[in-house]
Amino acid sequence: MKHPESWARIMVVPVIDLNADLGESFGRWTLGDDASLIEVISSANVACGFHAGDPSTLRRSCQLAVGAGVAIGAQVAYRDLAGFGRRFIDVAPGELRDDVLYQLGALDGFARTAGGRVTYLKPHGALYHAVVGNEGQAKAVVDAVHSFDPTLAVLGQPGSLLLKEAAAAGLRAVPEAFADRQYTADGGLLSRSLPGAVLTDEAVIAEQVRRLVTGEGVVADDGSIVPVTAESICVHGDTPGAVRIARVVRDTVEASASGVRAFTNVSS
Amino acid sequence: MKHPESWARIMVVPVIDLNADLGESFGRWTLGDDASLIEVISSANVACGFHAGDPSTLRRSCQLAVGAGVAIGAQVAYRDLAGFGRRFIDVAPGELRDDVLYQLGALDGFARTAGGRVTYLKPHGALYHAVVGNEGQAKAVVDAVHSFDPTLAVLGQPGSLLLKEAAAAGLRAVPEAFADRQYTADGGLLSRSLPGAVLTDEAVIAEQVRRLVTGEGVVADDGSIVPVTAESICVHGDTPGAVRIARVVRDTVEASASGVRAFTNVSS
Amino acid sequence: MKHPESWARIMVVPVIDLNADLGESFGRWTLGDDASLIEVISSANVACGFHAGDPSTLRRSCQLAVGAGVAIGAQVAYRDLAGFGRRFIDVAPGELRDDVLYQLGALDGFARTAGGRVTYLKPHGALYHAVVGNEGQAKAVVDAVHSFDPTLAVLGQPGSLLLKEAAAAGLRAVPEAFADRQYTADGGLLSRSLPGAVLTDEAVIAEQVRRLVTGEGVVADDGSIVPVTAESICVHGDTPGAVRIARVVRDTVEASASGVRAFTNVSS
Amino acid sequence: MKHPESWARIMVVPVIDLNADLGESFGRWTLGDDASLIEVISSANVACGFHAGDPSTLRRSCQLAVGAGVAIGAQVAYRDLAGFGRRFIDVAPGELRDDVLYQLGALDGFARTAGGRVTYLKPHGALYHAVVGNEGQAKAVVDAVHSFDPTLAVLGQPGSLLLKEAAAAGLRAVPEAFADRQYTADGGLLSRSLPGAVLTDEAVIAEQVRRLVTGEGVVADDGSIVPVTAESICVHGDTPGAVRIARVVRDTVEASASGVRAFTNVSS
Repeated sequence: MKHPESWARIMVVPVIDLNADLGESFGRWTLGDDASLIEVISSANVACGFHAGDPSTLRRSCQLAVGAGVAIGAQVAYRDLAGFGRRFIDVAPGELRDDVLYQLGALDGFARTAGGRVTYLKPHGALYHAVVGNEGQAKAVVDAVHSFDPTLAVLGQPGSLLLKEAAAAGLRAVPEAFADRQYTADGGLLSRSLPGAVLTDEAVIAEQVRRLVTGEGVVADDGSIVPVTAESICVHGDTPGAVRIARVVRDTVEASASGVRAFTNVSS
Repeated sequence: MKHPESWARIMVVPVIDLNADLGESFGRWTLGDDASLIEVISSANVACGFHAGDPSTLRRSCQLAVGAGVAIGAQVAYRDLAGFGRRFIDVAPGELRDDVLYQLGALDGFARTAGGRVTYLKPHGALYHAVVGNEGQAKAVVDAVHSFDPTLAVLGQPGSLLLKEAAAAGLRAVPEAFADRQYTADGGLLSRSLPGAVLTDEAVIAEQVRRLVTGEGVVADDGSIVPVTAESICVHGDTPGAVRIARVVRDTVEASASGVRAFTNVSS
Repeated sequence: MKHPESWARIMVVPVIDLNADLGESFGRWTLGDDASLIEVISSANVACGFHAGDPSTLRRSCQLAVGAGVAIGAQVAYRDLAGFGRRFIDVAPGELRDDVLYQLGALDGFARTAGGRVTYLKPHGALYHAVVGNEGQAKAVVDAVHSFDPTLAVLGQPGSLLLKEAAAAGLRAVPEAFADRQYTADGGLLSRSLPGAVLTDEAVIAEQVRRLVTGEGVVADDGSIVPVTAESICVHGDTPGAVRIARVVRDTVEASASGVRAFTNVSS
Repeated sequence: MKHPESWARIMVVPVIDLNADLGESFGRWTLGDDASLIEVISSANVACGFHAGDPSTLRRSCQLAVGAGVAIGAQVAYRDLAGFGRRFIDVAPGELRDDVLYQLGALDGFARTAGGRVTYLKPHGALYHAVVGNEGQAKAVVDAVHSFDPTLAVLGQPGSLLLKEAAAAGLRAVPEAFADRQYTADGGLLSRSLPGAVLTDEAVIAEQVRRLVTGEGVVADDGSIVPVTAESICVHGDTPGAVRIARVVRDTVEASASGVRAFTNVSS
């Protein structure tokens, strides 16, 4: 007979999604090993052209995702090719909403042509961080998603205004955790400007993933145990050894008796 | 009892469409009097962001069009803001197809959000002229339309490869005529580099429109009569007195016992 | 015999500069009436391509300025055509310095080709406001100017970090006043979001200019008199009636026994 | 006593320049191994921002070149980040001239800040090929160089209109040869669309370089010997093994009793 606690946990986290950025090349410049990464993940955050991703890259990314049975998410960003979307831009909410809607529509055309569709949105870079606390921009992103297709999910940081506004608007709000980032005692992430912010030891990463999947909570930088609720784990695609680490994460999830599956319904 | 010839003509050209470019502003810069023009036309060629049209302008243009019961067409272009899409770019067909698909998807998101949808495509500027005879680029545009939505129509120059390829692909191919351009004896247009290429006298424009609508053929620069088959008449939006001339065109069409109506089914 | 106080004032403000933005068109889109404005001002803040100004517009602007004996300033901005440089971008100082240096060099090539040279820099839009208090960005702009040519002046808001850092680096720091903006009791400007922020009554503008030129101080929104020290008065070029107001400003300066002359040495 | 023929040859080609593209990264995207390549070449064609090269990359490239005693050339291009400047654009000559002048000025600012200066220009990609036979564009590039600084040299394809127009304008016109491209019997290059167009065997490349340097002429694809006059040999920087091949080229030049030295006077 199953132990009740274990049973409950299995109910809460029966499967987990692995998401990663895809399609961040632009014209002559390539970034990441998309063909390998797509074999490991279940949800692909596809760049939409504003921080990366020329139209032909969007096409190839959607074809890769559909071919691998991976969900397609719109990785929307500020209009900033030179800065790769990593610089906060104080865009007025109305303009940001329209910038997001533009990207959503553009990507969805390629997704549908490839036989799939966009099933969720995840903000990129500085926009990801801005919508944690910037109400105007968070609402703008949610407005764009809601007006485009209210069945889309929104993937973002747990506790962010983005997820709160998404839920308030009736959208599915999906919190994510990080496989290779050091958590702090309050459930946040250790700043990238501090040593140890990014985990590189595969055993440490595997252990963090195991704890995320089993619901045991992650070990913070002060040694305390922090509960983290997530339906998806983010893995990185453009760092050295990215694909190998992503594979470690996937193996760990599968070894923990959880399956890997997109949090959205891929087959439209 | 109706005269057979008149009856026949009414059957052939019962109504005619008036199309014009819309939404060619960008950020701080405005162009054209869209709010006035929308009252006159039945099909709006909305700029999609590659030669003009920031996302908020796309939104406003689609809202204008839906509000006025005007069809929304994707006015796709080369990626060339600095040149307003007026310079030929030797884009490889595969990349052009994806550039067009990107623009189609982006505009359709705004059209749907506004309560309408994109119902046709018309190439802009140098791309319009290129697809008259450039087979690779003509096929690329048609491929993009067909893969996005095979119910879309394609609007272009009579006799162009674009319209031939569109028809061959099973798309509805719609030829257009020009209200204010001087035709030549072979049915072409007098080059803009020659005097008299653009008609500016309202009476002359009205007479050309009347002849187009009644099927009498237009008067070429050598005085000969040239038959011109068109389902739509193009009026310009960004020239001095553009809206007044557009109104003359509409009044002439309506006075000729033909109605003005979009060539596509606006209400989706 | 002259009154000592009046004599002193004439020594302090013998002449004043009038500066305005120039060359803010881009490709197909035109903005402002540069040909008229150039007749009124003594210093032209020429857009450098990042928020406005295609290369051919830079050429024409420099030719206009040199032809009219008007000083050429580099109106540098964030890289943001879609936002016309009006949105704060959190650019890292090192990148901003390089963005500014790029714009300075580009404009100077046109200035020299036209027979002049860039003699000062003025930040545009959101960058203008950011360098009032953002130390990293203020220093970045100053670094760029200093490394490009330490004989260039920097034009900006009185009391800004930009002018303090410029002076500390040995650059000439030139404060400006506004002909058509309502001042507050602390010497700042009434926020544009509040009514009355922009003066439109020509008599009110003329009186503010007269007080600026004579050193009597301007009348703040609470009726108090605020001293304002400025070597240049900014007039706007892209608002309705801009040129007419600019002419009022110039006439007022000249009627106040002060001449209008660039604050930099135009003839190189 | 020296053999007369050998003596004559030494007079004609006492030293040879090696040029390569540099600074073709953009923002997040890197391309080429500039730090290694700079050790091998004597002239660096630095991208100026229109096809590649953000401002910080321009700065780093100029610093690299000055530090290594390498000449700085302006690698000007069409405005086409998405296409990496590889697509012909039918830019009007006046606009192209201004686009080139803009790039020249921008790069020169960084060159001077780094302690050097731009000493020559070489067109990139599709522009390089266009100015072989397009008179309007060739003259436009020459006009830009001449108006910016008539002491600059122009580097290009032997026999091109670019070099003819440059010489006619009194500019120094420098023809280049290719280390790793297959020549045809008429002195042209075998089209890249044909097999064997690009040489990859290091021994073959070394032999072609040796023949270029000694003036023996290169072996064409039909086995005939073709005389090639060049003051500079172009090596590629962004292909696999690029730096190793560049090193082979340099070693070959030096083993042939010719020195490697920039064709322009680097120290200003």
